[in-house]
Amino acid sequence: METITSAANSRIKRLCALRQKSRERRKEGVFLIEGQRLCQDTPDKFLQEFYITQELLSEVSGKASGSNQFADRIRQWEKKTFVITNEIAARISDTQTPQGIFAVVSQPSYTKEQILDFDVPLYLLAEDIQDPGNLGTIFRTAEAAGVSAVIMSRGTVDVFNPKTIRSTMSSLFRMPFLYVDDLGEEIRVLRQRGVRVYAAHLGGKRIYTEPDYTGACAFLIGNEGNGLREETARLADEKIIIPMQGQIESLNAAMSAGILMYQAAMERRPKW
Amino acid sequence: METITSAANSRIKRLCALRQKSRERRKEGVFLIEGQRLCQDTPDKFLQEFYITQELLSEVSGKASGSNQFADRIRQWEKKTFVITNEIAARISDTQTPQGIFAVVSQPSYTKEQILDFDVPLYLLAEDIQDPGNLGTIFRTAEAAGVSAVIMSRGTVDVFNPKTIRSTMSSLFRMPFLYVDDLGEEIRVLRQRGVRVYAAHLGGKRIYTEPDYTGACAFLIGNEGNGLREETARLADEKIIIPMQGQIESLNAAMSAGILMYQAAMERRPKW
Repeated sequence: METITSAANSRIKRLCALRQKSRERRKEGVFLIEGQRLCQDTPDKFLQEFYITQELLSEVSGKASGSNQFADRIRQWEKKTFVITNEIAARISDTQTPQGIFAVVSQPSYTKEQILDFDVPLYLLAEDIQDPGNLGTIFRTAEAAGVSAVIMSRGTVDVFNPKTIRSTMSSLFRMPFLYVDDLGEEIRVLRQRGVRVYAAHLGGKRIYTEPDYTGACAFLIGNEGNGLREETARLADEKIIIPMQGQIESLNAAMSAGILMYQAAMERRPKW
Repeated sequence: METITSAANSRIKRLCALRQKSRERRKEGVFLIEGQRLCQDTPDKFLQEFYITQELLSEVSGKASGSNQFADRIRQWEKKTFVITNEIAARISDTQTPQGIFAVVSQPSYTKEQILDFDVPLYLLAEDIQDPGNLGTIFRTAEAAGVSAVIMSRGTVDVFNPKTIRSTMSSLFRMPFLYVDDLGEEIRVLRQRGVRVYAAHLGGKRIYTEPDYTGACAFLIGNEGNGLREETARLADEKIIIPMQGQIESLNAAMSAGILMYQAAMERRPKW
């Protein structure tokens, strides 16, 4: 294992750029993950390099082979592991208490054909979601609800943002997703293929529990501050509403998405 | 209006302490809010003082009376408004782009008697929720779902934390809540009063859509990392589970709470 002690090292500079800039991540087709749990759960085929602090490495090296999944993984990947100092870890990290382990990972990516290729699909369509935590929660809930794929407008926050990754957990490696330039066009394509598109909308006439979601369908969720653009909402088959008591204006975007996805999930459940 | 130009001013030091320390907030029985929206939505009875930047004040002063709710409010509260510099605003603010308006606000508080005094109540019981954003989302969703009150273990994050306030929106002023030293004891009291307590639990036998939530009931939600303590879960009438597909271990705590609260809300809806 090579040891890196200077923050000016070009590898370290690259890691900082990968953390901060979606442009850098896109250019290289990789992203940075942090923490034992994520580094352990990432499938082998995505892993490229590990960066571990001397402190954590010593701790891990003491574990008997077979006794600790994370330790075993680091041993397996020894040739692609770099040892770093705590100071460098603090510089690379997105959190205030770095866990001492980072990995450079390939971005999972899917073609339009793969995204369309499901029997009786359930899609989540997101327009311009801005909060990385919300997007991460949507991915994690989507996996649990058995959603086929998440389709996002280009204006949606980068799913490889460190904050999104923290809240998706490892769902990011399992939930198919696609960014599209024209979400409206995508809605048209889905409808032509028999997918019924429901827009979550405060002006919806039907309550979300009324439709039958056991067929091919999609939920369309708008931006946190402004909801869906009218021209996007108009392209859906139907607007549905989540009724609200009290005086709040809207639910959190991830919460709305989750409530809808679980409504569909439970209707579809006999077929799980 | 008095103008404050020094960050060393004792009023400004107090605001910083109120932002950072739950102990200071508790001692004074007040908290700090930030942003036009929240300052506008806070009921008069809770307001104590406003702090506004010279820049925002000039903008607001230009609005004709009656044309802008926020401008009208600042005019009304003129005698309890202090003018501050952008530098001071940056120091007081919890965000990277301060909105230039802050208020010191009394903490809403409720007695045990008030919390118990509902016909056919629906409670959300939270054990040691740590993420301020999760707690805020729980409050906001609880209001929308018609929850009677949120009851929290003492180990739950402070609801007057600036991050919680941002995600509760103004629900904080409308949703009754209580911190209790012994959540188990509270569960016993509720059950004695005929409230059926459902623990959200990965070991639950019944699926969450099966029980009838139209009677007096409560959902018990655990901590983000560890779920409910076994000794707390055991005190519930029943453990219920939100089924999950895929490989994730659990849903986000606020999401679990929201899915359960909306399940109950929709069953109760004919009576809204």
